[in-house]
Amino acid sequence: MPAGGPWTPSSIAAAGGSILAEDVSLPVAVLEEPALRHNLEWMRRFTAAYGVQLAPHGKTTMSPALFRMQLDAGAWGITLATAPQAVAAFEHDVRRVLLANQLVGKGNFELIADLQARDTGFWFACVVDSADNVAALGRYFAARGQCIKVLLEIGVEGGRTGVRDDAQAQAVLAEIARWPGAVTLVGVEVYEGVAREEAGVRAVLQRTLAQWRAIRDAGGFAQLPAILSGAGSAWFDVVAEEFAALSGDADAQVVLRPGCYLTHDVGIYRRAAARIHAGNPVARDMGESLRPALRLWACVQSRPEPGKAIVALGKRDAAFDAGFPVPALHYRPDAAAPAEAPAHWQVTAMMDQHAFLDVHAGDDLRVGDLLCFDISHPCLTFDKWRHLLVVDAAHRVVGAVDTCF
Amino acid sequence: MPAGGPWTPSSIAAAGGSILAEDVSLPVAVLEEPALRHNLEWMRRFTAAYGVQLAPHGKTTMSPALFRMQLDAGAWGITLATAPQAVAAFEHDVRRVLLANQLVGKGNFELIADLQARDTGFWFACVVDSADNVAALGRYFAARGQCIKVLLEIGVEGGRTGVRDDAQAQAVLAEIARWPGAVTLVGVEVYEGVAREEAGVRAVLQRTLAQWRAIRDAGGFAQLPAILSGAGSAWFDVVAEEFAALSGDADAQVVLRPGCYLTHDVGIYRRAAARIHAGNPVARDMGESLRPALRLWACVQSRPEPGKAIVALGKRDAAFDAGFPVPALHYRPDAAAPAEAPAHWQVTAMMDQHAFLDVHAGDDLRVGDLLCFDISHPCLTFDKWRHLLVVDAAHRVVGAVDTCF
Repeated sequence: MPAGGPWTPSSIAAAGGSILAEDVSLPVAVLEEPALRHNLEWMRRFTAAYGVQLAPHGKTTMSPALFRMQLDAGAWGITLATAPQAVAAFEHDVRRVLLANQLVGKGNFELIADLQARDTGFWFACVVDSADNVAALGRYFAARGQCIKVLLEIGVEGGRTGVRDDAQAQAVLAEIARWPGAVTLVGVEVYEGVAREEAGVRAVLQRTLAQWRAIRDAGGFAQLPAILSGAGSAWFDVVAEEFAALSGDADAQVVLRPGCYLTHDVGIYRRAAARIHAGNPVARDMGESLRPALRLWACVQSRPEPGKAIVALGKRDAAFDAGFPVPALHYRPDAAAPAEAPAHWQVTAMMDQHAFLDVHAGDDLRVGDLLCFDISHPCLTFDKWRHLLVVDAAHRVVGAVDTCF
Repeated sequence: MPAGGPWTPSSIAAAGGSILAEDVSLPVAVLEEPALRHNLEWMRRFTAAYGVQLAPHGKTTMSPALFRMQLDAGAWGITLATAPQAVAAFEHDVRRVLLANQLVGKGNFELIADLQARDTGFWFACVVDSADNVAALGRYFAARGQCIKVLLEIGVEGGRTGVRDDAQAQAVLAEIARWPGAVTLVGVEVYEGVAREEAGVRAVLQRTLAQWRAIRDAGGFAQLPAILSGAGSAWFDVVAEEFAALSGDADAQVVLRPGCYLTHDVGIYRRAAARIHAGNPVARDMGESLRPALRLWACVQSRPEPGKAIVALGKRDAAFDAGFPVPALHYRPDAAAPAEAPAHWQVTAMMDQHAFLDVHAGDDLRVGDLLCFDISHPCLTFDKWRHLLVVDAAHRVVGAVDTCF
């Protein structure tokens, strides 16, 4: 541990230290390095098997060090959700960004135009689903003497963004055609995650593929190969399967965008992984699935009633919108090693800085004990932390990563 | 607006700029300065009328610039929830911190001991509700040759932390007595917000008051006056009323800890304010209530269906656990002024970076339009932002504040 205070994740990372030795102020978010490495390799093999590119959604982690790990593991680019996220990635040397959202507002146009002006080698594209938005982009980027690359976004009725039908698509394409040199169509994009059933997911993917083919056949893309992109973190296997229809088509560049595979979880994405491993032959051949890599350590703060513990871990520290954190390990300071937490220890409520843990009256759980929690929904856990510690299998700190939220 | 990019809240604040002129990348969180000033003065008058001290809960904002405004408006100190928060406040010259939580874990003990070592004029106290925790504090601070000030925390059955009965209280007090010079009892504390009905709130406040008197009468406080502290942001009026029983008692120093009064909201705290103004004579005499001061501006990103707009504002940008953001203003770029948003525009769902807004089919709401949202639950909105802009009544940027989450 570093001499003098205050302790910070960065100073701890520099100095080494151990979660179990209480060298670190808790609560803390940790990334388990062996699991990270496993997940990087898993996704590299999966996308290689399908011959598709990977542009992991960086909004999940917003951590430049993790972007770098993903790019070093072969990712084609980084997907992002907002213009300020693109700026943060650019500042950390990411030079290929797919914005899986509409770019709206002059403030955001300017952020992107400034990046394109700073480095003409910066590759950036966003999605469009309305003629109004295309016209606004056209006016702005034409005035700047720049070109903005766009992908037509396909959506589903009752879903989120994206054109619902061919009439909307044609209106967008017609507007793009009015801005030669300022707005360039480079592909078609879909976020299938808003269609919850597999049949609906496959249907929108097939419609997206048909739209891509229709534009290609009409000579509508500014260049070939043209991008066909889909896949959040829950259905990337189905996207790979459906878009495999273009396998070997030299005109097509398929780009998948899952973000949560890097850390996985024990909630929504573990359930998705169970489905993937049951149905996808490539995943099945790889054997082991993704591993949860993002965990939280916290202290028992109070044992006010026999069946209740209050843990110093709150909504400020962990996602709570897709299931509460799940106790995984229990460690009493100075014990030899952590034990598995009993399955009946369950978080039943959270406040800003507290979690309410149900236990049994006779359980040996004391104030000051350490608990390690698994989580559900990495995105809304990452954004609680400016730094996360990287730990080894023995819970020793071997590094730290910053986030840029 | 500043020349060159990237725009940041800080550079915008330095350069001036306007939300309506789209000088700022949206979404953005803004603090409306006239409302902030009003709220500071409101709470100054309220606490002055009761003759009590104010230690606003700083975990709400974690913004040193706002701590400074609160202290300049007469606050006695700043309440905080965690040791790292206390470090952040200390680094920004706050020298009186009440930790309204147990201090647990060696990492956190060390953070606080280091602050006490750096400045012997730093006043810090935390709460205790278990003999185990007192013993751990005693061992650590005795070994450091330091003393830690503590308040006995009173709790309610089925609630959060705090002793449930006299036996627990006596066990804690007995353990404190074993650590003379290392653990010093300076008061009694309660968080009444976990008792949801007014009768329950009054009951636990009365029990807290009785406990304070019993300890005082037994000579149990290390010094007089001794602190009696309560009050989250929902029941501070009832706390002031109940603790007014000690008005004029020179042995007592009553400290209230609301944090959300500074920005207020249109959800949980507007409902609390309605109750307060209906029942509390001091509030009623002051006339106008607290004003919502924290708002969010965002762009309409997509109009994919006649009755639906997708707004570029997500769970990454706003609290969503106590009601979704509420559209307040609608502005079309280049219009003269914003209009009030129709009451039927309602957020029905949020994703990480998107809000789903129900509108009527004929409503004139376009991609690129700006919407200003009120919020519910300031704490979980503040923690989404590293900077917030300070704006005047015309939505011009007049400053910015940082946060230290």
